[in-house]
Amino acid sequence: MKYKLILTGCLLWSFQVLSAQHDRKIQFPNIEGYYTLKCDFHQHTVFSDGSVWPDIRVQEAVKDGLDAISITDHLEYQPHKKDIPHPDRNRSYEIAKNAAKNTDLLVIHGAEVTRSMPPGHANALFIKDANKLLIKDAMKVFEEANKQGAFVFWNHPNWTSQQKDGIATLSEMHKELIEKGWLHGIEVVNELTYSDEALDIALQNDLAIMGTSDVHGLIDWLYDVPHGHRPVTLVFAREKTEEAIKKALFARQTVVWFDNMLIGEEEYLIPLIESSIKVEKVAYQGKSSVVSVTVTNQSDASFILENLTDYTFHTFGDVVILKAHQTLVFEVKTVERLTEFDLKFKVLNALSAPKSHPEISWDIKTR
Amino acid sequence: MKYKLILTGCLLWSFQVLSAQHDRKIQFPNIEGYYTLKCDFHQHTVFSDGSVWPDIRVQEAVKDGLDAISITDHLEYQPHKKDIPHPDRNRSYEIAKNAAKNTDLLVIHGAEVTRSMPPGHANALFIKDANKLLIKDAMKVFEEANKQGAFVFWNHPNWTSQQKDGIATLSEMHKELIEKGWLHGIEVVNELTYSDEALDIALQNDLAIMGTSDVHGLIDWLYDVPHGHRPVTLVFAREKTEEAIKKALFARQTVVWFDNMLIGEEEYLIPLIESSIKVEKVAYQGKSSVVSVTVTNQSDASFILENLTDYTFHTFGDVVILKAHQTLVFEVKTVERLTEFDLKFKVLNALSAPKSHPEISWDIKTR
Amino acid sequence: MKYKLILTGCLLWSFQVLSAQHDRKIQFPNIEGYYTLKCDFHQHTVFSDGSVWPDIRVQEAVKDGLDAISITDHLEYQPHKKDIPHPDRNRSYEIAKNAAKNTDLLVIHGAEVTRSMPPGHANALFIKDANKLLIKDAMKVFEEANKQGAFVFWNHPNWTSQQKDGIATLSEMHKELIEKGWLHGIEVVNELTYSDEALDIALQNDLAIMGTSDVHGLIDWLYDVPHGHRPVTLVFAREKTEEAIKKALFARQTVVWFDNMLIGEEEYLIPLIESSIKVEKVAYQGKSSVVSVTVTNQSDASFILENLTDYTFHTFGDVVILKAHQTLVFEVKTVERLTEFDLKFKVLNALSAPKSHPEISWDIKTR
Amino acid sequence: MKYKLILTGCLLWSFQVLSAQHDRKIQFPNIEGYYTLKCDFHQHTVFSDGSVWPDIRVQEAVKDGLDAISITDHLEYQPHKKDIPHPDRNRSYEIAKNAAKNTDLLVIHGAEVTRSMPPGHANALFIKDANKLLIKDAMKVFEEANKQGAFVFWNHPNWTSQQKDGIATLSEMHKELIEKGWLHGIEVVNELTYSDEALDIALQNDLAIMGTSDVHGLIDWLYDVPHGHRPVTLVFAREKTEEAIKKALFARQTVVWFDNMLIGEEEYLIPLIESSIKVEKVAYQGKSSVVSVTVTNQSDASFILENLTDYTFHTFGDVVILKAHQTLVFEVKTVERLTEFDLKFKVLNALSAPKSHPEISWDIKTR
Repeated sequence: MKYKLILTGCLLWSFQVLSAQHDRKIQFPNIEGYYTLKCDFHQHTVFSDGSVWPDIRVQEAVKDGLDAISITDHLEYQPHKKDIPHPDRNRSYEIAKNAAKNTDLLVIHGAEVTRSMPPGHANALFIKDANKLLIKDAMKVFEEANKQGAFVFWNHPNWTSQQKDGIATLSEMHKELIEKGWLHGIEVVNELTYSDEALDIALQNDLAIMGTSDVHGLIDWLYDVPHGHRPVTLVFAREKTEEAIKKALFARQTVVWFDNMLIGEEEYLIPLIESSIKVEKVAYQGKSSVVSVTVTNQSDASFILENLTDYTFHTFGDVVILKAHQTLVFEVKTVERLTEFDLKFKVLNALSAPKSHPEISWDIKTR
Repeated sequence: MKYKLILTGCLLWSFQVLSAQHDRKIQFPNIEGYYTLKCDFHQHTVFSDGSVWPDIRVQEAVKDGLDAISITDHLEYQPHKKDIPHPDRNRSYEIAKNAAKNTDLLVIHGAEVTRSMPPGHANALFIKDANKLLIKDAMKVFEEANKQGAFVFWNHPNWTSQQKDGIATLSEMHKELIEKGWLHGIEVVNELTYSDEALDIALQNDLAIMGTSDVHGLIDWLYDVPHGHRPVTLVFAREKTEEAIKKALFARQTVVWFDNMLIGEEEYLIPLIESSIKVEKVAYQGKSSVVSVTVTNQSDASFILENLTDYTFHTFGDVVILKAHQTLVFEVKTVERLTEFDLKFKVLNALSAPKSHPEISWDIKTR
Repeated sequence: MKYKLILTGCLLWSFQVLSAQHDRKIQFPNIEGYYTLKCDFHQHTVFSDGSVWPDIRVQEAVKDGLDAISITDHLEYQPHKKDIPHPDRNRSYEIAKNAAKNTDLLVIHGAEVTRSMPPGHANALFIKDANKLLIKDAMKVFEEANKQGAFVFWNHPNWTSQQKDGIATLSEMHKELIEKGWLHGIEVVNELTYSDEALDIALQNDLAIMGTSDVHGLIDWLYDVPHGHRPVTLVFAREKTEEAIKKALFARQTVVWFDNMLIGEEEYLIPLIESSIKVEKVAYQGKSSVVSVTVTNQSDASFILENLTDYTFHTFGDVVILKAHQTLVFEVKTVERLTEFDLKFKVLNALSAPKSHPEISWDIKTR
Repeated sequence: MKYKLILTGCLLWSFQVLSAQHDRKIQFPNIEGYYTLKCDFHQHTVFSDGSVWPDIRVQEAVKDGLDAISITDHLEYQPHKKDIPHPDRNRSYEIAKNAAKNTDLLVIHGAEVTRSMPPGHANALFIKDANKLLIKDAMKVFEEANKQGAFVFWNHPNWTSQQKDGIATLSEMHKELIEKGWLHGIEVVNELTYSDEALDIALQNDLAIMGTSDVHGLIDWLYDVPHGHRPVTLVFAREKTEEAIKKALFARQTVVWFDNMLIGEEEYLIPLIESSIKVEKVAYQGKSSVVSVTVTNQSDASFILENLTDYTFHTFGDVVILKAHQTLVFEVKTVERLTEFDLKFKVLNALSAPKSHPEISWDIKTR
């Protein structure tokens, strides 16, 4: 057979091609009614055990196109004490805030509570005074953070230094914290790790699904930027303000973007995927009953799509990769010429629960 | 959490990275007892409606690392007749054969029977004299080809010019050809297309699963080489000879490599995938019960692997892409330290039947 | 010292960076009063000793963004005679012309006179009937070509098969041809070679400076497209028509673009370079007497510029590479703040004669 | 003309091709009798006005393949005083030294004297105690540094904040320092700048030619690593020890590697270039008198070579770029077959004095 449109070859064979000019700015579209804010709420500086001044964290975030960050230096762990002897625990926040002055980046006041397990480590965001969290009794720290109105989440519950098998497990203390309403989120993704069990805990206990870099050195090195990217928590907020982010976090309006995975509850995960993919053109080919459906992926995620319909494709099997920012043509064999039909896919690189992948559908109109 | 081995970051974040020096030579390992021969048995030259002299087909094949090709110019369709007036139908074979003299490439004598549907187009390989196939009656052409000992396969049964809905369908004539033993294979992949229905016909009727380029212009342009590659039929043969390939084709020992898909019967598909992926190192991390399993993909396929066990991974979800020629570390949470365990995956970019994906397993020994 | 504008780093360090999306279309701007037409007037097909049908030559040219080509199959050398027995020597032209019908590409009627040295090989362009050039006596072929109004140029005078030392040398026969006005150009560049001596002959004898691919196989392979490009003759013509090209060739209005070299007489070479480089912005830095001069290279040539003024640069030495399509900032130390000054460069990758490099200058106004 | 060795195309057309896997490690070969040590002796941390902890400087240097660095925080300028209140001026050295413990990197004790012009800024290396350099009188600081045995060099004499026209100029105070033997080197390259005038001062006054990054933020961002690289001082030392480096610096055995420039005295510059380029193969082509000379560039510099002989090349003009780590074939037309001849080039990207480029030569033996 001899095709007239040799150009379609390029679309088909794109699996192995990387978009040539990969901008390091993380890109996901907004969803209906919400801004999709890219946030990293767990980062360290020289004010605890990190290796950079807070201004570097601001510059990294600006380069990555983030909307909000929090510097969350360890409250209790101060290895640079000899050189930075009397650190006001609010200093790294203040310096970062100041460094972000002429940017669009929001810097949220935070700190990391650093205890042995339980309760392990936890981040408190939107605090008023970090120094007041220097309390010996662990439960009382959570109480104080909550008194300050903080959003508090459990860090790396899968950390093998505190949990030998890497299996995130809810202790009695964590149950109590949740019961008291003092714990509001959990890291399902930390640095280079993902935890199915943490995701399960989030879903069972109505905790916000969080993903963070927990960076100590440089983002560029840790994630091989621009080939890779840091994990971010996508927060779906009514506007780009601290207040709106806080409200959204308490309402668990998050999806985590990690490696090539999107992790979150279907309520936000499905709209995020559906608004990432735009059906651009629909046209039957000549006199055939094969219809070309051209879609464009406007996000950084490379979607792994499994066809759930009985229609088969003229150039693809049932599992199709729609790469980041790629335009792809699905040639659907509809047997007869239809005026309207549905395409349905399971999205295999997205998780709404352990081993559970969300389904999306496109309403295709051929006229 | 602060990792000691920052280097693992590179492994994890490799989804978006392309191996820098993509050699265009197609690479798949041999399997136990067989050579994995890369073959393209459907190609055209100026001796029918193609645009190149046969030597270009030989050079393209050598560049692509193929083991065998066939020039299959149309017997009945001769648009260059005005300039090439009395073509001996064996000429393109002879010229290609001669051009391949000092290479390792096998050139197999072939021709394309070119009829309206049914029976549509078909390729005859291992023929003795193409001129003798210039017979008016379609059935008699198949008879003659078989008399010459040819391996005959049905071309592009999904071609919308001959089948408006693109749905490969067995006609009475095809049934008769199969019954008589005159048709031995079917193109499941042709040029830029794949057909679920053709795969089904192959499986239902014991036809060899074939994939070809059907190239008329240039391989490099049609498949955007080196970013893409031509479809090939991987033939599992006892040795690299014409005779062994012929035997293997009649025995249906093939897997098709198309875009990022591998299509074939499990008997050869599973060994191909298993020999493509090598478990290289196994080691528990420190005192934890998380074990690092390092694997290397020695093939051009980027495998999309779905975890079928109850073990979860420390850095991956349940769907993992193991890219072409990539080394990847699976960090498996075994809960307790085990001396031996199995990892099982469904391979989503491989098809053993429409919508049916083969399963592979690795026996992991930790000591 | 600590810079405020860290961004300038990217401009400075671009020597080693390749523009990510290298379009294979060859790009040079027009010059005052003329179109800059990209032409390749020496190419072969299956109609002599080439390996492609003429349509491939048209497609290659369109992909390369050429304005005009000529298929110049050997008149006397016909190795495919067995299969193409009675070739009308105009056939490859006719087929190419037809293949270019719906494109902007001009196909110029040509042929290659193929003799031992002297006179060696020569191309005749704008001929009426190639068959009439099948004349035994070499001089008479040139006479006939000229009778048809042809533009005739000497091919690869440096070819080691005909000239063992590779040194282009004018024979008595060539002198006679020139005297008679029957030879109008000479290949200074052929395929992968450049000849200083041919350039000298062109200049001494008022022959047009020509550069061609002389392709027999595939352009993409011969020149490793898109990393490399074929040689082209840039023809400076009043309009994009056959007639205007013919007139321009006879008037020797050409520059050859080969590898990274531009070769031609200063009358056209200097305007070409000057219109390739655009001064975009001029501004003194703060209160200093260092002025930033931002220039953009709109061409495919990477210019190697040697500073001819006494001004020194703040970030460069005296030899600067301005890469293809790059924007670069020259920070000029003018000692005092000037309202106007000149920058002068020798362009080392351009040749107006053997070892002779043209000079360009920019009139910089700081207000 | 139709070449037999189409492969040579790749060599020729490499001007626009970047080596695919650019390792960020800076690579230059050793020269006869000396190690070529890659050094960056001007860097800042949070202990003055930099933005990183000293361990990042060590990691950057290891990634860049450096042999030695010095952390040279400002003695007098301490903007982070509020948070790092009583800095022992030796602290950043101590921390860096400790961070480099398990690496091959030498960390040399240094500090930056930070004064208005004159004398401007200066670095003292190999000091014993930075705190003792906190002396009000500028001359006395130099005296003390010299008492400690320091190698002292003048920083960024072209800095427009201290020298409005950017023209490095020797003050009376500098002359006195030189006369007293208290000033031993001068930055010809600082951060993103190069100064012809500073080079002149170095040569006129027997000062060592120095090039440094003067980094405050991140090396990767400032120099767009891996596309660019930081400036380094290549020190030619008898062994890789602090003592040998010190001796080499006082003996002015340096070449600066900046952008694509190599700057130094011919005594070391020429051996460096000659040992960077290796003649690998010499062979006359067939029966011609054109000889193929294959050379490999083993360095990171892309050499711009101007042919100084009367021989012309078969595929190049008189200016040839031999890219970093590239293998290139010079096809030399020797007119007659010679058993031995010389090739001579001016190296345009190297500077032995302002506007003065060194010459290299290769003794070619054809048997």
